[in-house]
Amino acid sequence: MNVLLVVKILAFLMLLYSLFMLLPTGVAAYYREYAALKTFVGTVLAVVSGAGLLYVLLRRVKSASLTMRDGFFLVTVTWLLASVVGAVPFVVSGAIPSPADAFFETISGLSTTGASILTDVEALPKSILFWRSLNHWIGGMGIVVLAVAILPLLGIGGMQLIQAEAPGPTVDKITPRIAETAKRLWLIYAGFSVVQTALLMAGGMGWFDSLIHTFGTLATGGFSSKNLSAGHYNSAYFDGVITLFMVLAGINFTLHYRLLTGRMGSLWRNTELKAYLAIFAASTLFIAFGLLGNTYATFGESFRYASFQAASILTTTGFATADYEKWPLACQVTLFLLMFVGGSFGSTGGGIKVFRIVALLKQAINEMRYLLHPRGVFTLRMNGEPVGKALVFSISGFFFLYVIMLLITSAVVASSGQDLLTSFTAALATLGNIGPGFGAVGPADNFASLPDYVKWFLSFAMLVGRLELYTVLVLFLPAFWRN
Amino acid sequence: MNVLLVVKILAFLMLLYSLFMLLPTGVAAYYREYAALKTFVGTVLAVVSGAGLLYVLLRRVKSASLTMRDGFFLVTVTWLLASVVGAVPFVVSGAIPSPADAFFETISGLSTTGASILTDVEALPKSILFWRSLNHWIGGMGIVVLAVAILPLLGIGGMQLIQAEAPGPTVDKITPRIAETAKRLWLIYAGFSVVQTALLMAGGMGWFDSLIHTFGTLATGGFSSKNLSAGHYNSAYFDGVITLFMVLAGINFTLHYRLLTGRMGSLWRNTELKAYLAIFAASTLFIAFGLLGNTYATFGESFRYASFQAASILTTTGFATADYEKWPLACQVTLFLLMFVGGSFGSTGGGIKVFRIVALLKQAINEMRYLLHPRGVFTLRMNGEPVGKALVFSISGFFFLYVIMLLITSAVVASSGQDLLTSFTAALATLGNIGPGFGAVGPADNFASLPDYVKWFLSFAMLVGRLELYTVLVLFLPAFWRN
Repeated sequence: MNVLLVVKILAFLMLLYSLFMLLPTGVAAYYREYAALKTFVGTVLAVVSGAGLLYVLLRRVKSASLTMRDGFFLVTVTWLLASVVGAVPFVVSGAIPSPADAFFETISGLSTTGASILTDVEALPKSILFWRSLNHWIGGMGIVVLAVAILPLLGIGGMQLIQAEAPGPTVDKITPRIAETAKRLWLIYAGFSVVQTALLMAGGMGWFDSLIHTFGTLATGGFSSKNLSAGHYNSAYFDGVITLFMVLAGINFTLHYRLLTGRMGSLWRNTELKAYLAIFAASTLFIAFGLLGNTYATFGESFRYASFQAASILTTTGFATADYEKWPLACQVTLFLLMFVGGSFGSTGGGIKVFRIVALLKQAINEMRYLLHPRGVFTLRMNGEPVGKALVFSISGFFFLYVIMLLITSAVVASSGQDLLTSFTAALATLGNIGPGFGAVGPADNFASLPDYVKWFLSFAMLVGRLELYTVLVLFLPAFWRN
Repeated sequence: MNVLLVVKILAFLMLLYSLFMLLPTGVAAYYREYAALKTFVGTVLAVVSGAGLLYVLLRRVKSASLTMRDGFFLVTVTWLLASVVGAVPFVVSGAIPSPADAFFETISGLSTTGASILTDVEALPKSILFWRSLNHWIGGMGIVVLAVAILPLLGIGGMQLIQAEAPGPTVDKITPRIAETAKRLWLIYAGFSVVQTALLMAGGMGWFDSLIHTFGTLATGGFSSKNLSAGHYNSAYFDGVITLFMVLAGINFTLHYRLLTGRMGSLWRNTELKAYLAIFAASTLFIAFGLLGNTYATFGESFRYASFQAASILTTTGFATADYEKWPLACQVTLFLLMFVGGSFGSTGGGIKVFRIVALLKQAINEMRYLLHPRGVFTLRMNGEPVGKALVFSISGFFFLYVIMLLITSAVVASSGQDLLTSFTAALATLGNIGPGFGAVGPADNFASLPDYVKWFLSFAMLVGRLELYTVLVLFLPAFWRN
């Protein structure tokens, strides 16, 4: 491993990450939250001087090409370090005194999970809440992707890094240069953020809460500045705006790019997009009819809550406008099933992802065709193109590891005395970067009561889920550390 | 499809199945259960005359070679028809008046699931209980396998039929002729049955209960003649004998054959066997230490209950000597995890099976190696031999379909108002042919309270699980019905 180069890039990434902290510093100044202000300023200074010094010391290290191995290591360590650095203000300001809690909350933010250990978010300083949600926004599109976009240093090896951080096994190059692709993805992401914030403010939401909910939406994160989550506002308009942008955030951003640049054609050929929208529409209708007449009186109201919650769980956002554990069981089960799906490749959504589900389903059907016609040739096609065997193997390996991680994580949660339902859905909600589960981690509860070792493990699960298993798990392979 | 030949074989198989009914007829005569006796005699006469007539009418139909398609159809219909025929005595004798219940109980028997809708088995006539458990024994090694063993007619195409019924995608031919292989497997199965029955009787269990518990053990079924299941006897000796034979029943019977014929060598090279024994040993020890000091006072006692329950769940038998829902959560979770494993290929155990789990794990690790060395060559090996890509694809397709079936079945159970834990484990316990789950279908409860449509669907899940998904699901492929 090119250790010095890795450390140099790491220093740069921490520098970049700490600069984001200037935003909550501004918020603290604006709201005159002096304790938080001091903490933020101190943290920024410490990181900037430390990482800056390191970067200057290593400035002569040449940008050699990075291997895949370097990429996995660098991205995993970046996310871990960022979670440590990001947790500092929570601990030092006293907002979240326990390091385990603060780390959990930060990685939950960065991984866009949205699982929280806070019981009363409204009691916290605004700048702290802002930082908590800003982590969603950073993690949604990814700090490494951002770095590739703005740092010529990473031009070589940037593809490896993006592969390790971006959701989905292959990054569609929408432009020949990877840095240009990364830049355009971040621009669309930022553009959507501006539009959603404007729409929320137009409906009468304050700028602060609008930003918080935009971060939570577009990153498919789910942190809110309100104890009742997005349900606080009880407004059909806000629900509609957030639902729309959750759905958009769960779509491959390269498709948004194609749409925005007028290349509509590829949209209708996109298997994943069609399946994603079909799953969303079907589950919304199913839940809406389930709610109608018992939970809500009109179809309009049922549809509003159903579409919001279906989008929230499907895209792995985790916002709640209702306590779905009080819904009819058929509706709860639909949400439970959606927890196994997730967003699209190249979106900010987590989970197994629609592409993988559809590909595995098609592959399983092909297997049955082979049973009938052993000498037939059945090709797996996605988006009208054949899918190579290597990708199918990679996806089925992913699926198996996902289930195994799910069961191991369930076991760790259960070992602390939680019932099986809580344990299983807590695992599902963290590994899938969703946020709330069922039982003691349902939408009206949170993760506060779990013991520290469970919080550490769930933090690990969130990271593993966000970096799509392989990037982190490969580090546990003895072969990784052999030369 | 060769319809006339399929009907002819079907008639023969029903003839064969109905002959097994002579055994409970004898039991009914012995215990002077005249109502049941009349029912059994009537059913046997009806089936024998009906199927016999059909067979005679079709005697001139030539034994052409059967295609895979014929095999899937024939085996699925055989199992469905057998469940209908087998349910008749339950309904007519009044032991289980509801057809849905009787069908559920019969297919639960044949599929060696052991899930029951009976609340008080001790109240039933002995001959009825005998028939219920005999279905385990028939289904354990398989009626089609038996037919292949004894019927020259099936010599051609017999391999296709065995492939469709036997657990595991490939049948090891221990002899060049498939009929000879089938015969030897059934002989070992019958031999083990004799030994276990003798051991139970030697410990003082009556012949009737010894046979019932032998059927339940060697088929990895789990039906008992006692309301407290095997726990009724509260005897370390019986627990030990049943544990030993459950573990044996979960091992590939071709390995037993090799061992009995003195070819020990292949045993130590068998990846699946080593993994199976390791999982059993590790989970037993983990549960035993979890029970020690709180549920049971001594290690001996903890070990006894732990090994019994671990074997019972791992092999998908489903006997209970304790209400494991009252055990410490860590022990419960271990059992929950074991529900995802199952027996070995070619054993009578159900579930995903150890071979698949190990192969998928090795494949996933290989995927990670490819990430590190994209141009490397990493071969998946089991039992020291490379595993072909086709088999890996087949296994990963199986795993995906298993999870999908699990989720769909959970949803169906939950739609009747059962909580998520009950729904999920009811699905797991039926699809995996285990028997008891957690919650309302725990070891101290049963499936009686579920509505009929759920019982029908769970019956379907048991069949799908026993015939290893593909055999049944392939019939739902439109391509299956096209010419």
